[in-house]
Amino acid sequence: MSEQNTTTRLDLFIDRMVSQRACLDAAITQTAGRSEPVFELGLGNGRTFHHMRERIRDRDVYVFERAVASHPDSTPAEHLTILGDVRETLPAARTRFPAGASLIHADLGGHNREKNDTFARMISPLIEPLLAIDGLMVSSDRMYFDTLAEQPLPEGAVPGRCFIYRRTA
Amino acid sequence: MSEQNTTTRLDLFIDRMVSQRACLDAAITQTAGRSEPVFELGLGNGRTFHHMRERIRDRDVYVFERAVASHPDSTPAEHLTILGDVRETLPAARTRFPAGASLIHADLGGHNREKNDTFARMISPLIEPLLAIDGLMVSSDRMYFDTLAEQPLPEGAVPGRCFIYRRTA
Ligand SMILES: C[S@@+](CC[C@H](N)C(=O)[O-])C[C@H]1O[C@@H](n2cnc3c(N)ncnc32)[C@H](O)[C@@H]1O
Ligand code: NI
Ligand code: NI
Repeated sequence: MSEQNTTTRLDLFIDRMVSQRACLDAAITQTAGRSEPVFELGLGNGRTFHHMRERIRDRDVYVFERAVASHPDSTPAEHLTILGDVRETLPAARTRFPAGASLIHADLGGHNREKNDTFARMISPLIEPLLAIDGLMVSSDRMYFDTLAEQPLPEGAVPGRCFIYRRTA
Repeated sequence: MSEQNTTTRLDLFIDRMVSQRACLDAAITQTAGRSEPVFELGLGNGRTFHHMRERIRDRDVYVFERAVASHPDSTPAEHLTILGDVRETLPAARTRFPAGASLIHADLGGHNREKNDTFARMISPLIEPLLAIDGLMVSSDRMYFDTLAEQPLPEGAVPGRCFIYRRTA
């Protein structure tokens, strides 16, 4: 028999990818037509970057990454790559992008939930000031914002696998 | 606007993972209660192996892998790991497992379809003799078997992302 009681790593992984896509697509649509750029925090293999680049034609997508190691067909142009540790590059971005970002996607973590949570707590105050008013932030981990409001998830997103926040004022 | 015309790497990846799970779950159910072991060809990160080990409680799952580098919670027991190049370990398995396998799963990985296809052609004749009668073979890529019959896909599987073959005689 195929035992269906437990959730496997494959199940969790699929849930995360599916949720990520649902949240990103919804956030992209909701911020369509804006001029402020999109920030992708963490490049990895480049799958979500590839997705963002294909789906977003009205704004620049900047990638913040410490070491570019993505697939050749999912590598951002050099002028759209911000190399370095986000702990330094995010504060620097406030000066470079005074109008902020219309959409910020963060997928910086690994599979260690405790480590991810600690990192989320540290990085939330660095991300918050970068979001333009009515801008959206999509994360695979729960964030710790002061003023950004958690949004309901779109259809297809699994609760707990992806989070959306909005800057209302 | 969120452009929906093209298929992104994220879309393809989700299709592959979802199809793999659907095909594996169906194949596991269809071969339930058999005594011949399950063969997982290629371990990688261990996600599908973790899934197989959770879902299969009636048979041993052997992993054929060149170099074990899976997550600690998705690593097969030593006595169920067959180390080496499948070009050697698959032929050797015919002697070790005269009754064959009830289910064989191969995820050829990668995005390089040409490389995968070359590999599929090479490995098909090595896999074919290992399948027990009425056994099933699940693959991420089209295979090149002489006597195994391609099976219809279960619900949820995307055509072209996963293939199922059966040994009928
Ligand atoms: C899970 S991966 C991103 C996967 C990506 N979303 C995809 O779909 O392929 C996380 C990435 O964040 C990067 N990263 C982690 N911590 C970072 C930091 N402090 N500064 C910059 N990049 C970081 C890692 O190098 C890695 O490339
Ligand atoms: Ni770990
Ligand atoms: Ni490649």
